Amino acid sequence: MTRQTHETPAAVYVTDEDAPGQVLVVCEHASAQLPARLGTLGLAPAARTAHIAWDPGAEGLARGLARRLRAPLITAGQSRLAYDLNRPPNAPSAMTARSETFDIPGNVGLPPEERLRRTEEFYLPFHQRLHGVVARRLAVGFEPVLVTVHSFTPLWHGTPRAVELGVIHDADPALAQAVLIEAQARTGLTVAMNEPYDAADGVTHTLRLHATPYGLRNVMLEIRNDLIATAQTQDKMAETLADVLSAALARLTPERAAVGV
Amino acid sequence: MTRQTHETPAAVYVTDEDAPGQVLVVCEHASAQLPARLGTLGLAPAARTAHIAWDPGAEGLARGLARRLRAPLITAGQSRLAYDLNRPPNAPSAMTARSETFDIPGNVGLPPEERLRRTEEFYLPFHQRLHGVVARRLAVGFEPVLVTVHSFTPLWHGTPRAVELGVIHDADPALAQAVLIEAQARTGLTVAMNEPYDAADGVTHTLRLHATPYGLRNVMLEIRNDLIATAQTQDKMAETLADVLSAALARLTPERAAVGV
Repeated sequence: MTRQTHETPAAVYVTDEDAPGQVLVVCEHASAQLPARLGTLGLAPAARTAHIAWDPGAEGLARGLARRLRAPLITAGQSRLAYDLNRPPNAPSAMTARSETFDIPGNVGLPPEERLRRTEEFYLPFHQRLHGVVARRLAVGFEPVLVTVHSFTPLWHGTPRAVELGVIHDADPALAQAVLIEAQARTGLTVAMNEPYDAADGVTHTLRLHATPYGLRNVMLEIRNDLIATAQTQDKMAETLADVLSAALARLTPERAAVGV
Repeated sequence: MTRQTHETPAAVYVTDEDAPGQVLVVCEHASAQLPARLGTLGLAPAARTAHIAWDPGAEGLARGLARRLRAPLITAGQSRLAYDLNRPPNAPSAMTARSETFDIPGNVGLPPEERLRRTEEFYLPFHQRLHGVVARRLAVGFEPVLVTVHSFTPLWHGTPRAVELGVIHDADPALAQAVLIEAQARTGLTVAMNEPYDAADGVTHTLRLHATPYGLRNVMLEIRNDLIATAQTQDKMAETLADVLSAALARLTPERAAVGV
């Protein structure tokens, strides 16, 4: 959360691009920071740090996971209320005017010029940087595995969610299936496939842009955010999920899974 | 072919980015120009202007098509012998050491550093620029249609090819099917679906990167290059294919097809 103290965050941060691991860890909802020019978007402070603004705990978890997997880490610098990087520029939810129970006044009735400006300021730099990380690895004969890290709220419109770890896939379910099996075998977590969201909800945009065109293994991990509310629990969850991912990759490609783990 | 006189071509040229048409015309094999630092790649002059270096006639056709459809045109600045922009960086054919009956000495045994350098010099700028064109249109509420323009040789290892227009699709065949129907109805061309190549040959990389993730209509057009050998025949073919594409789009989305045509 140190990034939130910056006045003008970059659109994207890449940590350890040259790390030797097979996985790339991506966290599109790492930050609740709003770019200065957008002010508060008309939101009260509580809303600006709630789940609608970011995925609480996801950045710390992603960082711990990347460290353990010796993976490059690609994180967003600003809130998804400015631009939700896991959505295409034509999706209303890319610059949403309403999220959960909150109206976002600063996003109501955005003119095309403002949608274009945010696309250029946030969406394109993030995805072009990530594309570069992927392409450079491919160029040197190395097929990365894309893992996106997200968190979800324990309550959804007042109803508790039982699932603790959601494993979400897009066109290629292979890694998600292996992660599900290993998570069930190795952890005490309540695990479910394609919960609390699935690809039909439009939550796999990053996978579709960067993994599917190259036939790369990929999975989206969703962790219930009450389980990763502190640096300590984020780190413990990172350890758990690093083991799960390593075992899942070994299950798919035994000869390659030892890389960097 | 004016681009071939430049000493240091850019990786990508965009013409009329703000054109109002629905289509984006893309020509990845527009140029036979080799970047100065690669010399001749060890090839005789005849090989450097043959089909292995570019798609003869495709750039002129693409330009005529873009003009008639009021479409932005995105073309490559250098030969596919430097980097084949319609291939991912991990494909051997991206920087091929052999093509048809030619060995390409300067591409034999490329070290990873050189593959990386060409990926950064050619592949990433081209596709990031094209991604920007697509994303900016999406941001302002406009779903472009991606049309890639290629040409193929009348003879393949000595055997004549009867097909004159190949219509190639990737995951979404809708536009290709409509183009096939309209081309058969409106032209005297010998038309075939997924010939002389298909997606399984790895020729739809650009479509996979830029159309499929956004659910955009898309098609790859392959024209036999003896039919577009001169500026005059390129322009005539552009007129024919502009009519075919306009009718095909009208067939798919009657309410939207008039845009820019």
